Amino acid sequence: MSRPVPLADVAAFDHESDVLVVGFGCAGGAAALEARRAGADVLVLERAGGAGGSSAQSGGELYLGGGTPVQQAVGFEDDADAMYAYLAAALGPHVDTEKLRLYCDGSVEHFEWFRGLGLTFEESLYDAPSWMPPTRDGLMWLGENAWPYDRLATPVPRGHRPSTEGYGGWLLMDRLAATVAEAGVGTHTDTRVTALVVDDAGRVVGVTARRFGEDLAYRARRGVVLATGGFVDNDRMLRDHAPDLLGHDKVSDGLDDGSGIEMAAALGAATRRMASVEVAYTALPAMAVRGMLVNGLGRRFVNEDAYPGVFSHAALHQPGPCWVLLDEEGLESIPAQDLWGVRPTHAAQTLEELEEELDLPPGSLRDTVAAYNEHAARGEDPYFHKSARWLRPLRAPYAVVDPRLGFGDTVGEQHTGFRGFTLGGLRTDPDGRVLSVPGAPVPGLYAAGRATSGIHGDGYVSGTSLGDGTFFGRRAGRCAAGR
Amino acid sequence: MSRPVPLADVAAFDHESDVLVVGFGCAGGAAALEARRAGADVLVLERAGGAGGSSAQSGGELYLGGGTPVQQAVGFEDDADAMYAYLAAALGPHVDTEKLRLYCDGSVEHFEWFRGLGLTFEESLYDAPSWMPPTRDGLMWLGENAWPYDRLATPVPRGHRPSTEGYGGWLLMDRLAATVAEAGVGTHTDTRVTALVVDDAGRVVGVTARRFGEDLAYRARRGVVLATGGFVDNDRMLRDHAPDLLGHDKVSDGLDDGSGIEMAAALGAATRRMASVEVAYTALPAMAVRGMLVNGLGRRFVNEDAYPGVFSHAALHQPGPCWVLLDEEGLESIPAQDLWGVRPTHAAQTLEELEEELDLPPGSLRDTVAAYNEHAARGEDPYFHKSARWLRPLRAPYAVVDPRLGFGDTVGEQHTGFRGFTLGGLRTDPDGRVLSVPGAPVPGLYAAGRATSGIHGDGYVSGTSLGDGTFFGRRAGRCAAGR
Repeated sequence: MSRPVPLADVAAFDHESDVLVVGFGCAGGAAALEARRAGADVLVLERAGGAGGSSAQSGGELYLGGGTPVQQAVGFEDDADAMYAYLAAALGPHVDTEKLRLYCDGSVEHFEWFRGLGLTFEESLYDAPSWMPPTRDGLMWLGENAWPYDRLATPVPRGHRPSTEGYGGWLLMDRLAATVAEAGVGTHTDTRVTALVVDDAGRVVGVTARRFGEDLAYRARRGVVLATGGFVDNDRMLRDHAPDLLGHDKVSDGLDDGSGIEMAAALGAATRRMASVEVAYTALPAMAVRGMLVNGLGRRFVNEDAYPGVFSHAALHQPGPCWVLLDEEGLESIPAQDLWGVRPTHAAQTLEELEEELDLPPGSLRDTVAAYNEHAARGEDPYFHKSARWLRPLRAPYAVVDPRLGFGDTVGEQHTGFRGFTLGGLRTDPDGRVLSVPGAPVPGLYAAGRATSGIHGDGYVSGTSLGDGTFFGRRAGRCAAGR
Repeated sequence: MSRPVPLADVAAFDHESDVLVVGFGCAGGAAALEARRAGADVLVLERAGGAGGSSAQSGGELYLGGGTPVQQAVGFEDDADAMYAYLAAALGPHVDTEKLRLYCDGSVEHFEWFRGLGLTFEESLYDAPSWMPPTRDGLMWLGENAWPYDRLATPVPRGHRPSTEGYGGWLLMDRLAATVAEAGVGTHTDTRVTALVVDDAGRVVGVTARRFGEDLAYRARRGVVLATGGFVDNDRMLRDHAPDLLGHDKVSDGLDDGSGIEMAAALGAATRRMASVEVAYTALPAMAVRGMLVNGLGRRFVNEDAYPGVFSHAALHQPGPCWVLLDEEGLESIPAQDLWGVRPTHAAQTLEELEEELDLPPGSLRDTVAAYNEHAARGEDPYFHKSARWLRPLRAPYAVVDPRLGFGDTVGEQHTGFRGFTLGGLRTDPDGRVLSVPGAPVPGLYAAGRATSGIHGDGYVSGTSLGDGTFFGRRAGRCAAGR
């Protein structure tokens, strides 16, 4: 369905606007709002029944810094250079340095843009490793204070959370959609874009779409912005480009089918880093940090106080399955609200029993715990440099948690404990222009969010996808509007 | 330079043939020969001063099986199903099953095709792990007899080597180029193809090229076959698609610039698995197998009797640098010809000394060797399942070899010990037709070799790139000729 339609084949356009935005997640919403504010007549086409997309399913964390009012109120000094240093390492290697520089330099202003949507942020810090704090705290660590990043710059927390309980993506999208509507942007829901319309000169001048069995054509006087999301819901594309996610759970609204990427690539648009993925291993950080994460050989492989996305990537490439090993004292020290109802799956007086139950090499846990304890007694971790705050020799009795239980999953064949989405996509310039393989912009075509390859290299940190989706979505909207 | 040229912009064609083949490595040579044999008038355009390409720089191993005369003479029974089972696992996960099935089913016939070029194969086996045997033996193991592959099917060696000393790629290309010339195929060397020529209907009808400052146009009456190789020599493409290879040495003739991939992608052709790479860690298998490979944490990470490409992929993703640890008895048991002049870089009476010299966590080598010895004494390796043939407790004095010394490299900043090439490329059907993003063939356009994504999933085994390049090159040539 990604084959472009020649303008000559379009008998008549059913609708027309200056800027057409395809997809109403955070990137599409940001693009639509800024295009409208730049004076354009804007229409958003959304395949689902309403705005939201995968953004609305997310935790709602926003990676922002450089000295936001929240950071200042909590007592942290930050600047764009320190933020850049952290993200270049944590999202790298091989980040898009030009986009990342803009993102960091513009971060305080971007925070104010979110406040302008009506979002509020509590001026308090959640001070322990977590996928998502069980509190309303407005600020959280996202790996800045864990080795090796703690050595790059003075660690400063930059995870900003709109004030709500639990997942906050819905709130972000609720406010964004309301602001977009108030600004006078039109939205056609239940409208699936099927192809780009291209004129003789190769300019994208509209799209074809389908709504409730009806074929429609939309003309874009100034530009089309693709904000269709990634391709985690398209197994064919995963096989071709990002097989790491095959067979795992998806972080999406079920509609991240890569259609925008393929519609543009069919025109000769370039892609970038199509194999890069975000992946979350559902181990509970509050458990892992108090004990250890071991792989299928009974060996540690990461500092357990790392941002959970870091231990997730590491876990994905370990001989599996992985386990969280705790002792009784560690388990009992976890605040109840951080347990998410997860309980140990195995308990034993000796490590030998656990080696047998978990089918680990004989002696493996014995050796791993002995080495850990030897160093932990001195507050050291020469292998992975977990902070002394969390180091303590482990003593019988022991408990093991199946990480697949994290976030309330049922352990079984159907769950691997990994959930992810794709980070690769169309190559765009910092203003959202879609670039062709030879390097020139495809006239009339823009993109933002996970339909594009954004600031990321090999790594990922929570809040950088909503972050770069909105940041570069805004820029794409302004550029498409002709500003 | 990858932007397609409309036919209307070509004033006149300077040359014309039925089939134009771009690139004279093994895939281009195979395509040209079979197109000619199918009755087509064929012209090969090669950017370098003569035939060869990266194929001529290679070791010349060919992954073939299913019961070749060499296998039979040496005393091994093989069949296509066993070959498929091994390759599906070793090149996987996520191999191209359709192509792989054809490759295995056609392997005995393909072996005869190589003999038809005038290549001979000694009927003898080199029976130890090696990148390249120091003998003329015609058959070698390529991981079939190492865990976990030894459990999939009865292990059978399938590495076929044309009879020569050392690297054999030059011999293969020498014979292929001679056969192509004898068949009446024309070759224009020093001719760099700059763009595809496309008619109004979207059919590829020729190419533009540059030779010694002169711009030329070539018409292809039936089809153009892209056999331009991979993109390991193009750092921009590596950054965008296969960053694992950035900063490492390249296995190529220096001209694998991805130009064919980009010329086709600019037309909307689909790519597949652009992040997949072959990588060779230059550790000497003869050393590693008699001791252990440890990572920068002093821990083993692989069975050292694995195909060296397997330990290479594993090493690339370990915390580095990696080391080979041996004891005196192991070192002295290595045949001189397998040492390639490489000597240990460190020697010590105790593991503690080595931990300090190599900057490994204190106690790490002590624990690793203790666990290894505990099991090796019983002929077991519960961690990685190295064959009992190579298991023996290690005893002082110890020697350590810097794997970057393998193959005669100088240890230094400029060498990382990793050398690789790219496996991703254009999506083709089994007859070499280049497929567009929407899935239909691009009319008139074919591709083979490392300009395409072939049989490989995530893995690689020596001889599968020359193997699928020639096998699917032949099919592409026949198809382009209209057969």
